[in-house]
Amino acid sequence: MLSKAQISLITSLQHKKFRKQHGLFIVEGLKSVSEFISSDYQLHSLFATAEAQAKMDNLQQNIKCITVSASELQKISLLNNPQGVVALFNLPEQHTLDWIHIRQQHSLLLDDIQDPGNLGTIIRTAEWFGIRHIICSVGTVDAYNPKVVQATMGSLSRVAITYTDLSDFISTADLPTYGALLDGNSIYETDFGEAGLIMMGNEGNGISKPLLSAIDHAVTIPRIGKAESLNVAVATTIFCSELARQRLERK
Amino acid sequence: MLSKAQISLITSLQHKKFRKQHGLFIVEGLKSVSEFISSDYQLHSLFATAEAQAKMDNLQQNIKCITVSASELQKISLLNNPQGVVALFNLPEQHTLDWIHIRQQHSLLLDDIQDPGNLGTIIRTAEWFGIRHIICSVGTVDAYNPKVVQATMGSLSRVAITYTDLSDFISTADLPTYGALLDGNSIYETDFGEAGLIMMGNEGNGISKPLLSAIDHAVTIPRIGKAESLNVAVATTIFCSELARQRLERK
Repeated sequence: MLSKAQISLITSLQHKKFRKQHGLFIVEGLKSVSEFISSDYQLHSLFATAEAQAKMDNLQQNIKCITVSASELQKISLLNNPQGVVALFNLPEQHTLDWIHIRQQHSLLLDDIQDPGNLGTIIRTAEWFGIRHIICSVGTVDAYNPKVVQATMGSLSRVAITYTDLSDFISTADLPTYGALLDGNSIYETDFGEAGLIMMGNEGNGISKPLLSAIDHAVTIPRIGKAESLNVAVATTIFCSELARQRLERK
Repeated sequence: MLSKAQISLITSLQHKKFRKQHGLFIVEGLKSVSEFISSDYQLHSLFATAEAQAKMDNLQQNIKCITVSASELQKISLLNNPQGVVALFNLPEQHTLDWIHIRQQHSLLLDDIQDPGNLGTIIRTAEWFGIRHIICSVGTVDAYNPKVVQATMGSLSRVAITYTDLSDFISTADLPTYGALLDGNSIYETDFGEAGLIMMGNEGNGISKPLLSAIDHAVTIPRIGKAESLNVAVATTIFCSELARQRLERK
């Protein structure tokens, strides 16, 4: 039986203010919860229907799971169709930047991405292609927003997300910086080398003016049709894919 | 002043049954409506606030626009944040298949894509890369679903969408057919040639069994990280981008 206080704590986690206050975020669904449990994230508490518990294969004996009824689950789930399992994890400290890795491969820089679905898709796709670091401007939507977590399908547990001032980061990194812009060289004719930073701009406004001077290479996705723009998650996908293609070709 | 009958007709168009019955679909927002007006689609009626009308630059004199108040607009809009303009267009006859074009370039085949946002993103991205024909299985979500229309950002007005039996289509087309599968050759090592069909499967189940035998080339997006899958709109984006890259390289 869940207490009112538990229900109110869990549902409050849809707001960044309360995630910060409690130091917790919410993950839902068997697959995503399992992937977070297997990762470095620290499980705080786990709620699941009896049916869902039976399906959780990596539920070790030392993990306490609170059994909830379907109607209790409905009260704590933030989804329209609750998926049997709700888990709270401790918000990590800001990820330590692994400079050795950052200097050896490509990382994404996100300048004020606003839509949780876009950020979630970017994290999932970047992780598919082996990107380990995503550096977000402080104005980017919070990666622990439940809609972002949901859209990453567990991939958030395997990517280091850092929020920081992008100008400062670029100065410190001292790596070739590629910006997705409308008037650059074709992405297909750009040699991305072994390591670098790929910067994607805000949905409506693109890359913000103060960051433009930090870009070494303006890169454009050639347009053959007449669409005015591409969704930012789609554009990021094209960069991740081209990076992978060039990396695999070099091998 | 809108009549109750008008309001009920317009809002009914969120359902496929009523779109078919009335032969109409709904488009919202200045940009999308303008692009549909400039296309071959036939405008049926146009509703806009006075403010939005002032911004519609391609509103020719022969187009009658019904002025609505913000509160009236709220009643007919299907969006959470109405965008000033609601237009009804006549549902087209099934697009005639332009076999000359189909035999000269690549077309997409979509096997039971269910999510309107995914289909919308696929249409928008495909059109950016110059794809002219999208052939959907009859089980694919309706392209005139308002959520699809919205997500295409106007690109739907420039792509021919056909719903048909994919097996029959493939037989008739007699073109090389490439299927997005998990156990094929790398997309980056696949030569897509000048023309062909690219088949993408359903979000949960992939390409349906009866269609597998029609695939000439199983093609896979190499995975470097540990994500279990890619979103289907993301996977389609990667195919469209690679097709464009190869085409531009041949020039």
